[in-house]
Formats: sequence, C-alpha cells, structure tokens
Amino acid sequence: MKITTATEYFEEPLYLESGRILDSFKLKYETYGELNEDRSNAIIVFHALTGSHHAAGRYDGEKNQGWWNPLIGDDKVIDTKKYFVICVNVLGSCFGSTGPMSNSEKEPLRLKFPVITISDMVKAQMKLFTRLGIDKAHAIIGGSMGGMQALCVAIEYPEFTKRVISIASTYATQAWAIAFNRLAMEGIVNDPRFKNGHYEMSDFKEEGLFGFAVGRMAGHISFLSPHSMDSKFGRNYVATDGLYELFGRFEVERYMEYNGHSFAKRFDPLSYLYIIKAMNIFDATRNYDSLEHSLHHIKSKLTLIAFKEDKLFRPKEMEEIRDTLVNLGRGSEVDYVCVDSDYGHDAFLIEYDKFDFYIEKALR
Amino acid sequence: MKITTATEYFEEPLYLESGRILDSFKLKYETYGELNEDRSNAIIVFHALTGSHHAAGRYDGEKNQGWWNPLIGDDKVIDTKKYFVICVNVLGSCFGSTGPMSNSEKEPLRLKFPVITISDMVKAQMKLFTRLGIDKAHAIIGGSMGGMQALCVAIEYPEFTKRVISIASTYATQAWAIAFNRLAMEGIVNDPRFKNGHYEMSDFKEEGLFGFAVGRMAGHISFLSPHSMDSKFGRNYVATDGLYELFGRFEVERYMEYNGHSFAKRFDPLSYLYIIKAMNIFDATRNYDSLEHSLHHIKSKLTLIAFKEDKLFRPKEMEEIRDTLVNLGRGSEVDYVCVDSDYGHDAFLIEYDKFDFYIEKALR
Repeated sequence: MKITTATEYFEEPLYLESGRILDSFKLKYETYGELNEDRSNAIIVFHALTGSHHAAGRYDGEKNQGWWNPLIGDDKVIDTKKYFVICVNVLGSCFGSTGPMSNSEKEPLRLKFPVITISDMVKAQMKLFTRLGIDKAHAIIGGSMGGMQALCVAIEYPEFTKRVISIASTYATQAWAIAFNRLAMEGIVNDPRFKNGHYEMSDFKEEGLFGFAVGRMAGHISFLSPHSMDSKFGRNYVATDGLYELFGRFEVERYMEYNGHSFAKRFDPLSYLYIIKAMNIFDATRNYDSLEHSLHHIKSKLTLIAFKEDKLFRPKEMEEIRDTLVNLGRGSEVDYVCVDSDYGHDAFLIEYDKFDFYIEKALR
Repeated sequence: MKITTATEYFEEPLYLESGRILDSFKLKYETYGELNEDRSNAIIVFHALTGSHHAAGRYDGEKNQGWWNPLIGDDKVIDTKKYFVICVNVLGSCFGSTGPMSNSEKEPLRLKFPVITISDMVKAQMKLFTRLGIDKAHAIIGGSMGGMQALCVAIEYPEFTKRVISIASTYATQAWAIAFNRLAMEGIVNDPRFKNGHYEMSDFKEEGLFGFAVGRMAGHISFLSPHSMDSKFGRNYVATDGLYELFGRFEVERYMEYNGHSFAKRFDPLSYLYIIKAMNIFDATRNYDSLEHSLHHIKSKLTLIAFKEDKLFRPKEMEEIRDTLVNLGRGSEVDYVCVDSDYGHDAFLIEYDKFDFYIEKALR
C-alpha cells in the first residue's frame, strides 16, 4: 500500500460560518493507494475528535498503527488496491492543520482563533479535494465526529458522492454529550498551567496538563456505558493497592488515570477546546426549518451504523435520520443498522468485525 | 412538628472495618416528632453522599428546607405526629460529625483520617440509637448512599427493625459510579489549592475549589441520564451567550456550572473524598461467600424502590437483590418496584409523588 503524507497550503480566505475569516490555512493529510485515471476511486475518511490524518499503516519507528488500520489497506474492506483513500486532519486540530496553536503565522492565535464548525471543517477539505483534482468521491465515511462531517457533506455538497457512511454519530449533538464536553472544558480552563491559553506544550510535556487529563477521563466514561464498564472492569481492584487506602484504585480508575494522563501529554488543550465546541454546536438542522428540510438535500445513499450501548450518540439519534428519510419517501436510499456491542461508543474503533460487512456492502 | 438538633459525643473507641481505630467520635443528628413511651415509633432516615442530618423542616432564616421535607412532617408520609424520626450526619461528613476536617482534636486529621466504610457509618449510628434508648426501630429508610446504610443494617443488625426501605441504591457500587467518583477525586486532588489536604475552607470561600466544582459537575451528569437530559435541557442555548463564542454555553452547561461551583463553596473536599471512597468500596457481599449468604441474614421485610432512568444505581442492581431473596425462598419478604421517571438517579429527591405510596405501604 502506497502511503503519502503531505501538507497543502491555501493562500486564500476561508469564510467561516461564524462570519469570521481565516486569511489563509493549511491542511495536513494522508493518502493510501493510488488515484485512478478518471479520478473516480477516491474514498474520503473523516476522523473523530482526537484522531488525525494518520488513519492507516505504520510509520517507521512508530508503535501504533493508524487509527482505522484494520479497515484500510490492501485487500481490506476499504481496499487500497482498488481505492484511493484520503484522510485529512481537521481544521482546528493539532496534527498539522491550521488550529489555535499552529504557528505558520508569527504567533499562534490561541484563544483568538475563531470558532470552527463541522461545516467549516468540511468546506476547507472540499478545497483540498478540488486541488487534488477530485470532483466526486466514490464514497465518504466517518465515525463519531467523522460521521458528522460525512452527513454534512451529504447535505451541503449533495453531488460530491453517491455513498455516505456515518457511524456512531448524530445529526445534532445532544445534552449528554455536551455535558461531558463541558467537564473537559472546565478541567482545562481551570488548570492554572493553562494560563488562559498562554501555555506552551513543552510546559507540560512531562506530565500533561492535569485538568485536561481529568477532562479526558470524563471523555473515557462517555465512550463507554454502565453495561460496557461492567463487562470490561466489574469491581476488580488493583492488586497492589490497599482496599482501605484512600487512593487505592479499582481497575476502572487505573484505566481512566492511564488514558487521561497519557492523552494529555500528546494532544493540545486549545485544539481540544475548539474541536469539542465544533461538535457541541453541530446541528444539521441549523439554517433549515427542520430535519426534513435539511435531509431533503441529500442525493446519496446513506448508510447509518449505530451501536446498541452507545450513550454519546445513541441509536435513536441515527433512527431519527432514518425515519425522517423514510417519511420523505426516501426509504430505499437509507440503510440503518444497530450493532449489538458491549463497547459503547468506542465500538467503532474496536469491534470492526461486527460492522465491516455493512461498510463493504455500502461501497459496492 | 418538634425538631431537635443535637451532637452526641462518644468517648470510646470505634473499631473500624479497616482495622484502624477512632479513639473517640461525635455524631450530629436531628429528630422530628417525639419518641413514644415504649420507644417503638422510631424511624431512621439515612442521608446520601452530600446530605446532612437536616432532613426536614426549615431553620430560622434559612432559604431551603431539609432535603426530604416533602416526605417528613406532620400528616406527611413519614408522619411526625405518629413517628419519631431520626437522621444522623454520617461519620466522615462535614456537617458536625467526626470527619477528616473535624477539629474536636487540636488539629484535623485531614488525609491521615482513616477510610470509613458504610458498615462503620452504621456501627457509629447504632451506638447513638442505643444511647437514645432505641433498641428497635419501626423502620429504616434511605436513598442512594442512605439505601446502602439501610441494607447494611438489615444484614448486620437483623433484629433492629422489621421494615427496611432502600431507594435508588445498590448492594455493591458498580464501575460506572466508581468512574464518576474518580473524576471528583482527580479534580480535587489535582487542584493546587487543595494543597495535598492542607487547605482551610476559608481559603476558597469566595469561589470554591475549582477542581472540586469540576468533580461535582461530573456528579451531576451521573445523577441524570441521556434521556433525562434531553427532557430537561435539550439543545437549549443560553440566550445571552453567542453561538460562535468559544465559551458560549448550552443550558445544560450553565446548570452544571452553577451547581458545581455553588456546591464547592459549601461542602468540604476532604469529606467528599472520604465519602465517595466509602461508597466505592461498599459491597454487601464482602465478608460473605456470595450475595445469597449475605442477604440470608436479613430478617426484615425489604422494600426496594428503583428508578427506570437511574444510571448510577440501576434497577437491575436492585433486581439482583430481589431475585436473590426470591431464590432463597423469601419472595414474600421483598417488595420491588421500578418507578417510571425521567429524572434519573435524582428522582428520589424530586418525584416524591411517584414513590411515596410505596413508603407509606411499607410503613404500615
């Protein structure tokens, strides 16, 4: 599989949904496989909150593979012998695209960076696809925030593709998810080392920003469910900790601690704030009278994959999309499946064998 | 209704489950109504995590009434014309009973205070009841952590009462609840103003301990559910906040912010750490081979009230208690009801009219 990592610079204004303007911007992206002659074999993969353009393969010396490696590659479900796969680091993120801490300019904008929406992320990416000579994609696909981007393209660029796959996602972020994001925000902003945004990542390389770690731990709760936590951890206690020590830990606590702190070392807190904001205010019905009016624009076949125990973006939210399309007389243009999984929201990054078939089917 | 608030001092050792000893201790408590001649009309009410002995009535100049005021009073479901109601501030708390910051001694023990268990809380209270001349109670009743205490008495002091009511509670705290408590712990401990326990509450009277506020916000998520948040907040946005302001808020965020910060001003962070620890390690099967062996000791009639949307202590946890008793051939000694409520765990402090009938029935 041929992997190419690149950065594309846009010396042109990007008009944002908020009315603000980015004078110029850059997007980091990665591609897998090769674009065919008639440029018709592109599949766009959109990443989630903390993902990056590195969706598949393994860099030299790197321990972990791309975040969707089991699905993308030669002879895999998203077959790179057949398809040219593109994954772009979203605007606002910290892996090479323009964001609050990107210092292509002299000094990063930090808290003066404008709020970005899912529409803005998509708008920037569409400019990249145009530059790459891709006017139409074979399919677009994304999980969680990636699924929001996929739905957004389906509504706002209805001619771009005939196949849209949205996984573990929603048409509008609901209160439960917003509440969890608030914990992350509070954790970050109240940490004195955040310095109202005037930190340097090197300030907390050693141990990460504590408040951010707490916020990320909250995220890890929301990615699971009461039921999935029972299966995963139960009441198992860390063997070397004392039951009557105040800071003795259950296994679920060790899991949170480890994931929270390790994440806080590698992700930028300002980027996190901006991306959760984009997710919070994502609402496919904004600028439309109703979900009907919004989804009415879709021309592609929509595949919706939900997970039974997902509490962050619940099956019922996907079902509303399906039901709305059915009510519009478009029932034949939507496939909905609710996958039985114990992993909650995280399932889209874990239990591939339970949903890869539906992706394969949608790509046909 | 006659209300009496008092503190009882015990100049005797309390042997704790951990093997540690409190040389002496005090308990703050409140009573409503009057004890009858044969001392047979006492009802014990156990409070939850952040509750106090002030369960009913209103103090002079106080804005809020006791936390279960709609249920306790003259001619109310827990009728103080008929019953003598006692509510004791638990060991470890910060409302007058011995805890990590109580300075009956010269200097509070802070993080050197021993870990307290639900059994320890109950053991201390039983000494108080004995001192008050109450060998048997008409009934005992509690919600959430109060329900743990009620179940604990039923198992460990089977002769104390014939009627035990446990509401929105469990027989052993599960991973989901432990995970939320961890957020509170991390928030508190990582706040620099916590000073490894060497703070004074007056240090943060103005604005509370930020990390504690974040932890409490997490608690407020756990008291609700995705469904109850939809009903309560939906995607309503604070009218005076800008949609494209990074720190603009949805109503659910304002709710969390308000409740988190106001709570952090009035509750002691160390007490919170010790009480969530007690809840985390509560397990009615500890010291027994199984839940069967544990519940086998119960001699009273058990009334279990769960709430459909309670994610913290789920109906299925109460059902396990019921099923275990049924398997022991004690089906006639247990009443279980799952109340249909949109309020999640919080319902036991809100939707009285949906469950007061079951309390009334149990008290007969």
